[in-house]
Amino acid sequence: MSHRKLFLLPGDGIGPEITEEFVKVISLLNDKASAGFEIERGLVGGAAYDAHGKAISDDDMARAMAADAVMFAAVGGPKWDNVAYDVRPEAGLLRLRKDLELFANLRPAICYAALAASSSLKPELVEGLDILIVRELTGGVYFGEPKEIIDLGNGQQRAIDTQVYDTYEIERIAAVAFELARTRDNRVCSMEKRNVMKSGLFWNQVVTRVHKEKFADVELSHMLADAGGMQLVRAPKQFDVIVTDNLFGDMLSDVAAMLTGSLGMLPSASLGAEDAVTGKRKAMYEPVHGSAPDIAGQGVANPLAMLASFAMCLRYSFNMIEEAEALDAAIAKVLDDGLRTGDIMAPGCRKVGTSEMGDAVVAAF
Amino acid sequence: MSHRKLFLLPGDGIGPEITEEFVKVISLLNDKASAGFEIERGLVGGAAYDAHGKAISDDDMARAMAADAVMFAAVGGPKWDNVAYDVRPEAGLLRLRKDLELFANLRPAICYAALAASSSLKPELVEGLDILIVRELTGGVYFGEPKEIIDLGNGQQRAIDTQVYDTYEIERIAAVAFELARTRDNRVCSMEKRNVMKSGLFWNQVVTRVHKEKFADVELSHMLADAGGMQLVRAPKQFDVIVTDNLFGDMLSDVAAMLTGSLGMLPSASLGAEDAVTGKRKAMYEPVHGSAPDIAGQGVANPLAMLASFAMCLRYSFNMIEEAEALDAAIAKVLDDGLRTGDIMAPGCRKVGTSEMGDAVVAAF
Ligand SMILES: CC(C)[C@H](C(=O)O)[C@@H](O)C(=O)O
Ligand SMILES: CC(C)[C@H](C(=O)O)[C@@H](O)C(=O)O
Repeated sequence: MSHRKLFLLPGDGIGPEITEEFVKVISLLNDKASAGFEIERGLVGGAAYDAHGKAISDDDMARAMAADAVMFAAVGGPKWDNVAYDVRPEAGLLRLRKDLELFANLRPAICYAALAASSSLKPELVEGLDILIVRELTGGVYFGEPKEIIDLGNGQQRAIDTQVYDTYEIERIAAVAFELARTRDNRVCSMEKRNVMKSGLFWNQVVTRVHKEKFADVELSHMLADAGGMQLVRAPKQFDVIVTDNLFGDMLSDVAAMLTGSLGMLPSASLGAEDAVTGKRKAMYEPVHGSAPDIAGQGVANPLAMLASFAMCLRYSFNMIEEAEALDAAIAKVLDDGLRTGDIMAPGCRKVGTSEMGDAVVAAF
Repeated sequence: MSHRKLFLLPGDGIGPEITEEFVKVISLLNDKASAGFEIERGLVGGAAYDAHGKAISDDDMARAMAADAVMFAAVGGPKWDNVAYDVRPEAGLLRLRKDLELFANLRPAICYAALAASSSLKPELVEGLDILIVRELTGGVYFGEPKEIIDLGNGQQRAIDTQVYDTYEIERIAAVAFELARTRDNRVCSMEKRNVMKSGLFWNQVVTRVHKEKFADVELSHMLADAGGMQLVRAPKQFDVIVTDNLFGDMLSDVAAMLTGSLGMLPSASLGAEDAVTGKRKAMYEPVHGSAPDIAGQGVANPLAMLASFAMCLRYSFNMIEEAEALDAAIAKVLDDGLRTGDIMAPGCRKVGTSEMGDAVVAAF
């Protein structure tokens, strides 16, 4: 029996509740399929700040490093709105991404058939929608230096952030996008602002070269990021894989997620490079939604995005494709059966709580 | 009779065609109302590059400086996709914004009643939509230095862009947003990424202080820019005025414009500071849509955004409120009458060309 080491970071808000639901799936896999998952738990975000004044401890960082995969739920909430910038809840998430070098963030924007009607968009525009946004996650304006607020005298201050991209950073994220496209509809659209940003111009050049050298079989197009945002709203089904930088990826994936009507449903995977020897890669999985402090602790949160994130974990970290597909199918089934948490409630459906939803998925699995 | 000096920059693609239509309105105002508009024309974008190798000449910049208002149509097209970065068509637009110090970009996202059905969004989400996006236009990552691609050796290069905001830049754009809110529903939502960017944190602080010191009567809220993009798609009518930085404003205003179903219809105004003595301000007006090279020269382009931009010009540069309202009303009327250019064609409507549409507005004016 193999040992599979999972490190759980439930974080804040609804994080702990939804974490408990996917732990049920782990128990099932261990009991029925001897999957050998071992779980450790750590603190991140506001919970970590309250415990020891940092957004994540060095100890928990070490445990994240040593794990086969990290399952991250959500961080933040009004309670920590005024803590210092360096120890704000998000700092824990950003440190995990950076120190584990999780440069490739995969954000599927899929529209569950049962939820198409709850999209803001006309149903025919989103029915069957299946986009994959590949967002660069360890570079760009998120981490570039200088990043500071300086005093200019005379009551004036200046804030500076720096967008930085090196050749290798763009090469590796482009390669991930092209490889994933080959397993899908074989089309990549790269988005940047080459008309305004030197990093956009450079992004465009490197992606074009990587395509020519290694992935000429994949269809590549380029779009300005602002036009990309428009096109996502106008006709989202035109896209297969979108590859873009950290900040544009943040914006565009949120817009894309909202289109689906499935926001509370969407997972993400953040992957590092494959180790040349072991073939293993560092990875963290995380729902796209936030910590929803307003409904925390009430047992009403939607655990499905967390469960779908675990399906991505099974797929990308443990190559358990069959189990991943079964979990995805179980999620689709409970929706088809009409079960809904409050956030996705619709006429004619049955409203259930966090734990009942988790149990239903486990039963359907 | 007063003299009103307009400088016209038709630019590329459909720019020249749509410019001719609003010139008809000028003639009407001069003939019927002795408005005394004087017109000069210049070159910008690809047209300027073809003529003299720059995206705008110093001569034309001087004429833009001397005018009471600049009417800018659109720049760019595949023909100039590979010209050098410094002389690409957009460089002309960016130089105009920067050298005229047009720091306040006003982008109304309104949904014309006659066009609600053509939005991607469900009609009830956009009917009556009336948002004003106030975008900072002369700072941020568009103009910050360093902005360069450098060689690192070993086949590696590095691209750098710099987001810079000084106190005064945020103060003045916030003031514009609050003042405009007072003429509307008195609500401002400020958007940034304070959880990731120091300039976002700083933006948030300065807007909050300006509000407290001078505009406490206006309702102020803050939203992370990615969440803002989501909320624009989920429930756009929740917003009145949105104030945001140059890059987020670029993205968010494009998403907002697309929501309305009226993309080919939307105008914008870019304003400088009021001169302390004369009370005058530099200004440039421009449709939100681009140069649409694919349909250029065919007489089928939609001139309404250009006409609506001239309505903003009448309002903000010449204080001709009555005429501005009459022009806006004429645009709404031709739509209500069922006239449509190809881009907004709908069942039961009558398809017209650029010039017929312009004539109809003039007739309804
Ligand atoms: C919480 C925040 C730091 C984060 C980001 O900006 O990347 C979030 O918005 C996301 O998209 O994962
Ligand atoms: C053409 C381009 C430079 C410009 C911008 O990015 O500001 C455009 O997208 C806009 O929004 O006016």
